[in-house]
Amino acid sequence: MSQKKGRVFSGARPTGRQHLGNYLGAIRNYVALQEDYECIYCIVDVHALTTLETTRDLRQNTYEMALDWLAAGIDPEKSIIFVQSNVPQVMELHTYLSMVTPLGKLTDLPTFKEKARQQPHNVNYGLVGYPVLMTADIVLYKANLVPVGLDQAPHIEFAREVVRSFNYRYNTQVLIEPEMKVTEVPKVLGIDGQQKMSKSLNNHIELAATPEETLQRVMQMVTDPQRVRRTDPGNPDVCNVFTMHKVFSKPEEIAMVNVECRRAGIGCVDCKRLLARNLNEHLAPFRERRAELAQNPETIWEILRQGAARARVIAEQTMQEVREAIGLP
Amino acid sequence: MSQKKGRVFSGARPTGRQHLGNYLGAIRNYVALQEDYECIYCIVDVHALTTLETTRDLRQNTYEMALDWLAAGIDPEKSIIFVQSNVPQVMELHTYLSMVTPLGKLTDLPTFKEKARQQPHNVNYGLVGYPVLMTADIVLYKANLVPVGLDQAPHIEFAREVVRSFNYRYNTQVLIEPEMKVTEVPKVLGIDGQQKMSKSLNNHIELAATPEETLQRVMQMVTDPQRVRRTDPGNPDVCNVFTMHKVFSKPEEIAMVNVECRRAGIGCVDCKRLLARNLNEHLAPFRERRAELAQNPETIWEILRQGAARARVIAEQTMQEVREAIGLP
Repeated sequence: MSQKKGRVFSGARPTGRQHLGNYLGAIRNYVALQEDYECIYCIVDVHALTTLETTRDLRQNTYEMALDWLAAGIDPEKSIIFVQSNVPQVMELHTYLSMVTPLGKLTDLPTFKEKARQQPHNVNYGLVGYPVLMTADIVLYKANLVPVGLDQAPHIEFAREVVRSFNYRYNTQVLIEPEMKVTEVPKVLGIDGQQKMSKSLNNHIELAATPEETLQRVMQMVTDPQRVRRTDPGNPDVCNVFTMHKVFSKPEEIAMVNVECRRAGIGCVDCKRLLARNLNEHLAPFRERRAELAQNPETIWEILRQGAARARVIAEQTMQEVREAIGLP
Repeated sequence: MSQKKGRVFSGARPTGRQHLGNYLGAIRNYVALQEDYECIYCIVDVHALTTLETTRDLRQNTYEMALDWLAAGIDPEKSIIFVQSNVPQVMELHTYLSMVTPLGKLTDLPTFKEKARQQPHNVNYGLVGYPVLMTADIVLYKANLVPVGLDQAPHIEFAREVVRSFNYRYNTQVLIEPEMKVTEVPKVLGIDGQQKMSKSLNNHIELAATPEETLQRVMQMVTDPQRVRRTDPGNPDVCNVFTMHKVFSKPEEIAMVNVECRRAGIGCVDCKRLLARNLNEHLAPFRERRAELAQNPETIWEILRQGAARARVIAEQTMQEVREAIGLP
């Protein structure tokens, strides 16, 4: 892996079956990065504990998510894919980093304030430390690149500051300041056409849905609200269906919809049928691989276990350096 | 060890050579408890990181402290003695417990407020979580008893609450609520006769001091401030020298001092010489063992390593149960 351009780390919470938002926002990018980078992809179950009301579905959600990632092309021969809690070194590093992180810096973060608003009944100590654990995730593997959306910029800046604090305090260069790898991703709204696609809002389209389910969900998509009747001209620029066409349809189809919608030459129903067909076509190989993999769930768990074993080797190496740098007995 | 009455856990920060305050407040008790309990004694270097300005002396301080503990009679055949950071499972458990611990409960603790006052420039995230890590220390080993002074009662109550939160949240009985084992200990002031004996105040008398150094320190002790001249009668009830006589001198000597001081029959100088002699006599076997042990520092480190190995076996067993109870993948 040494001839690669650098080491990428990314983590995502175990949210179960992935949807188009996950796919376009992260997974597709994860797959592409494997060519040029040494990639470490982590299902961050420990982070999930800071907000989860119940852990009943944690295992199943982890499994479904791993299945989707693998079916989408994350290759365990090329990349490390694993579950966060299976490498407990991350919590050890988290604890050491927590001692060079001012409390005020954490409670001042907008994301913390937002979460505290969302769950005022459960502002737990771990929730406050979420960016510290995130820092530990990244630096434990000495990743130099983190593919994130621009909204995550403050977290990466935070991680860099924690690394500098640690290195300064212990007069070391053991930890590496990660950098953001910003990737342009289409902004995918849910079928409500209003909010970001999200499982919890139930406005999502699952990658693993059947073609019929997919068609059904696409047909429910909210389009240009100004276009009330079939004969009204529409505006693709404000239509989420068109956004998806731009990702999943052929150039000539995109051009056609762009023109015909504006002059009421195509109705929303036909436009959506076209999208659903293209979507199903695009996802067909994914769904086939997924069905194959799903025949033997133990294989998925084994891939995750082997990924964790590889991750632990890197993690333990870093921790030895960290303990030495701190001067622990 | 199964026929013992229960499992005791106690930890102390690596403060280097121990003094009479440590001895009377903790070590003597640690040694005594070994007869009836399965004891786990931990040098909590991770806790030290929440407040230490520098870790330069961490290793040496750990070594000196272990040496004192062993010379004082902590028996690695009977008890487990180890360094906290050598069992990283404690930081894993700490992280999980942090997610069932409300932030407000931590910032409300008087000890946190006190520490935040002492180091306003360094109120780090780890400092806030100190009682959570302390809870992890205890429950990781399923200790049911924690020998503490009454001033530590809120921390044990806190630990019990965290255990209840965890067990309730994950519907389990995996973690055990520890109980305090309050032991009556004499209140040992420093040689200033004002403040608690403490290395940082330099008002301490080291166990490992030479007889001459000990005499010198005892001669510096502040006695009853009302007794200005040799001919003034003194009041042993307010004299720290007398407090120590009660621990280290023979009953007839204690009785004599108690009477003679009050009628100026004995002067402070003679009274102190008597104390120093008794102190040196009492500590002679300790100092001999210490000198022997110190001839081979590697033995001390090996004892700590073996202790950590034994501790890790218990810790890993608990963590397997904890991960299972949480429902981690």
